[in-house]
Amino acid sequence: MVGKVPLDILKKYIFTRIGVRDPDVIIGPKYGEDSAIINLDDKVLVVHVDPITGAIEWLGWLAVHIASNDIAVTGAKPRWLLDVLYLPENAPEDLIDKLTSQIDEAAKEIGAMIVGGHSEYTPGLRRPIISMTAMGVVPRNKYVTTAGVNPGDVIIMTKTAAIEGTAILATDFREILLEKGVGEDIIRKASRFMKMVSVVKEALKLAELGVHAMHDPTEGGILGGLAEMAYASEVLIEVWEDKIPIAEETKILCEALNIDPLKLISSGVLLAALPKDKVEEALNELRRLGIRAEVIGLASKGKGVILHRTSGEKEVVEEYVPDELFRLWKELEIKHD
Amino acid sequence: MVGKVPLDILKKYIFTRIGVRDPDVIIGPKYGEDSAIINLDDKVLVVHVDPITGAIEWLGWLAVHIASNDIAVTGAKPRWLLDVLYLPENAPEDLIDKLTSQIDEAAKEIGAMIVGGHSEYTPGLRRPIISMTAMGVVPRNKYVTTAGVNPGDVIIMTKTAAIEGTAILATDFREILLEKGVGEDIIRKASRFMKMVSVVKEALKLAELGVHAMHDPTEGGILGGLAEMAYASEVLIEVWEDKIPIAEETKILCEALNIDPLKLISSGVLLAALPKDKVEEALNELRRLGIRAEVIGLASKGKGVILHRTSGEKEVVEEYVPDELFRLWKELEIKHD
Repeated sequence: MVGKVPLDILKKYIFTRIGVRDPDVIIGPKYGEDSAIINLDDKVLVVHVDPITGAIEWLGWLAVHIASNDIAVTGAKPRWLLDVLYLPENAPEDLIDKLTSQIDEAAKEIGAMIVGGHSEYTPGLRRPIISMTAMGVVPRNKYVTTAGVNPGDVIIMTKTAAIEGTAILATDFREILLEKGVGEDIIRKASRFMKMVSVVKEALKLAELGVHAMHDPTEGGILGGLAEMAYASEVLIEVWEDKIPIAEETKILCEALNIDPLKLISSGVLLAALPKDKVEEALNELRRLGIRAEVIGLASKGKGVILHRTSGEKEVVEEYVPDELFRLWKELEIKHD
Repeated sequence: MVGKVPLDILKKYIFTRIGVRDPDVIIGPKYGEDSAIINLDDKVLVVHVDPITGAIEWLGWLAVHIASNDIAVTGAKPRWLLDVLYLPENAPEDLIDKLTSQIDEAAKEIGAMIVGGHSEYTPGLRRPIISMTAMGVVPRNKYVTTAGVNPGDVIIMTKTAAIEGTAILATDFREILLEKGVGEDIIRKASRFMKMVSVVKEALKLAELGVHAMHDPTEGGILGGLAEMAYASEVLIEVWEDKIPIAEETKILCEALNIDPLKLISSGVLLAALPKDKVEEALNELRRLGIRAEVIGLASKGKGVILHRTSGEKEVVEEYVPDELFRLWKELEIKHD
C-alpha cells in the first residue's frame, strides 16, 4: 500500500486515540476536516500538517503551498510555518540549498514566515521528505469548515479539475505519454500546471464574502473532495460532469492513460458552498483576481454525492474515493513484474 | 552523515530563508531556541516540531514527549499535538495500532490532545518515522527562553546526565555491552531510563517560580545544552563535573563503551538558570514533585562554556557539541566494514 491510510484504519486507530479531550479544541481529528481549529478566546488558531514525499523537483515549494492551502480554506491567512526536512544520508549541500530556496520563495509568494523546524540526515532514506506545519489565526466568528454546507447552497469550483494531477502525470509518466503519441508541447504545458497549486488568494477572498464551506480537494480529486464535504456536512451534493471545467491538457493526458480526471489529485482547485444570493458576486470577485470559477452543483437535504455524467448516467460517489494516480502506479508495477 | 544538520549549514540555508519576516513572531528560527514564540496580543503561542526516526520500540510514546518538552521549557503547557506517521509500504495494522496506542498514552500522561495529523504509507521507507508538532499558549509576560540567562544566575539541572542516551545505549548496544561484561540487570535498569524522558512537570513548576531561562538538552548532551544556553544568552557558563549527577547505570554503560556521559543525548534532563535567591525554593519544590535537582554551575559576564573537570583540568566547550552516540555509531560501522 502507498498513500493515505484508509478510512477504516483512521477511524479505528487514529481518530479515537487523541489523548485528553480539550474543550478549547473546536475541530479536532475528523473525516473531511484537514485543519484543527482551536479556541483562543476572541480568535481561533488554525493549524495543519502535511507530508510531501514525492515530487522531488518542486518538493520545497510544494510543501509550503500544500500545507498553507488547508489553512486558507478555513478563512485564516497562512502566516507561520514549521518544516522538518528529512534528508538522505550524505545528501549534497546542493539539495538543502534547493529545498530551502524553494521554501523561502513559496513562503514569500503567500506572505508567510518560517518560524521553526528541524533538518536531519535520516539513515536509509533514499529521497528527501518534508513535513510542513502551517498556522494562522482568524476571528472567532469567521472561520469556515468543510462541514458548513447547507441544503440549498450552490457548489462552485475554481480553476480546472486535477490541476496537481495533470502536472504529476506530465512529470512521472512522460515516457509513457510520449509512447502513446502525446505531443512534447502538451506535456510541457501540463507540467506547468503545478504553478497553479495555491488556493490561498481565492480562499481568503471567498471567506471575506461569507462563504458557507470550503475545501481543498487533494487525493481522490474533485469527487473525493465533494464526498468529504457532503459527508462532513451531512447533505446531498449533486454535480454535473459537463459543468466541471477540465483543461485541454488534462483531458489529453487522462485519455492517454485511461484515467478519470474527476478522481485525480486536485490541489489547486478550491471547492466552495455559497448561499444562492452570493454566487454572482463571488464569481465576479474571483474573476477580478484572474481566477476562473464555475458553478458545478447544488446541495440539498440527504447525504452523499451524485454525479450526473454527461452520458446521462447517475453515478453515486463513495465516501472514500481512491485516487486514480495510485491505481495507475499499481497497474504499471504489475506490468513491470 | 546522520543526525542533525551542522550549524554552518543551518546558518547558510535555513535560518536565513524564512519567507516574509512577520513582526508578530517574537522568536523565530534561531540557534539554541527550539520553539517558535508568536504574539497573539494578551498571550503568546508556542510551537515546536520534532522528528523521531530511531527508537522503534517507543517511537509513538517518545514522539509526544520529546516534542512536548520543548513547549514546556517555555513555560507553556503542551496542549495540542499534530502527528505525521510515515509508515513503511505494507506496514501491518499492528504497527499502526502500537504507534497510536503509545501516542494516546503519552498524550494522556501530559494532559495533551492530538488535534490533527496525517498518516501515510511511504514508498521505500523501511522503518516508521513520526513528525510531531506540539503547541501551547502562555500569558504574554510569562514565557521563558533559552536566551534568558543573566550573569549571576545559578545553573541547575534535574535528574541525571544522559537519561535518554543511557536507555538508547542499553537497547541499541546490548550485545556489545554484554560482551564487555556489563550485567543483564544493569542493562535492564538502564533501558528503563526512557520512562524519565518528560520534563513537562518540572519545567512548568520552575516557570511558575520565575526561572530566567530553561533548556531541554538533547543531542550533544548536558554540555551541548549548556553551550546552546550560553551562546543564545551571550553569557559565560561555568560548570563543575563533580556536581553533575550521573546515575550508576549511566557510568557503567559509558565506561564500557568509552564515551563521555556529558556529551550523550539527554532528553529527560532540564537545565535552568535562576536568580540566586530563588534556588533553594526551586530545589525544594522539585524535590516535592519527586524530581532530583542539583546546582551544577554559575553564569557570569562573557561567552561560552567552561567545564571544570574533576581532574582539575578546565575544558572549553565548543558552540556545537557532536553527540557521542553518532561517534559510537560511526566507529562501529568502520569496524563492521
